[in-house]
Amino acid sequence: MPLPHGQAAALLAEVPAWKLTTDGQRIRRDWRVRDFLTGLDFFRRVGELAEAEGHHPDLHLVGYRQVTIEIWTHAAGGLTENDFILAAKIDQLPLELKA
Amino acid sequence: MPLPHGQAAALLAEVPAWKLTTDGQRIRRDWRVRDFLTGLDFFRRVGELAEAEGHHPDLHLVGYRQVTIEIWTHAAGGLTENDFILAAKIDQLPLELKA
Repeated sequence: MPLPHGQAAALLAEVPAWKLTTDGQRIRRDWRVRDFLTGLDFFRRVGELAEAEGHHPDLHLVGYRQVTIEIWTHAAGGLTENDFILAAKIDQLPLELKA
Repeated sequence: MPLPHGQAAALLAEVPAWKLTTDGQRIRRDWRVRDFLTGLDFFRRVGELAEAEGHHPDLHLVGYRQVTIEIWTHAAGGLTENDFILAAKIDQLPLELKA
C-alpha cells in the first residue's frame, strides 16, 4: 500500500531537494552535472546503492548533463518509506555539478 | 541544418531497430535488458562510444530493465547523419536482453 498523503509529505520534508511528481506517485530530483561521463559515473554509484538496497530508481541522462532520478515503489503503486530512504542515500553520494 | 525528411527516412532504413519519434526530430530505440546493472553496464559502453564520437545520446533506464536511447543533434534542432552513425554503432555494442 502506498503511504497516506500526509505521511509522504512529512517524509518529503526530510529530503527537500526532491519534489513530488504531478501525479503524486513518485519523487524526483534533477541535477545539472559537469558532463556526460560525470552523469554516468553517478549512475554507477546509484546502481551500487540500488543493488544494496534492493530498490531501483528510474534514471535519465538527457542533453549531455541533465540528470533526473525518479523513485517510487512499483508494487505499491506509489510512494513507500523505502523511496525516501533511497532518496536520502542518493543525496549522500558524491557528484560534481556544472560549475 | 537537420536532414531533409526523405534523407532521414533513407538513413533510418539502415538502422531498422530505431524509430522516429512522433515529433520527427529524434530517433529512439528501446531494449528490455536482463537487469538494472546490465542496463548500467550498457550505458557505460555507450558513454565510451559517445566520447569517442563526440556525440552524446539521451539515456533512460526505467522500471528496472527498460532501456531507451534517443539521439538527435541539438545544434541542428533535428536529425543529422551523425545521429544515424551513432545509432549504428550502438547497435553493435554487446547487450544481454531479458530472457
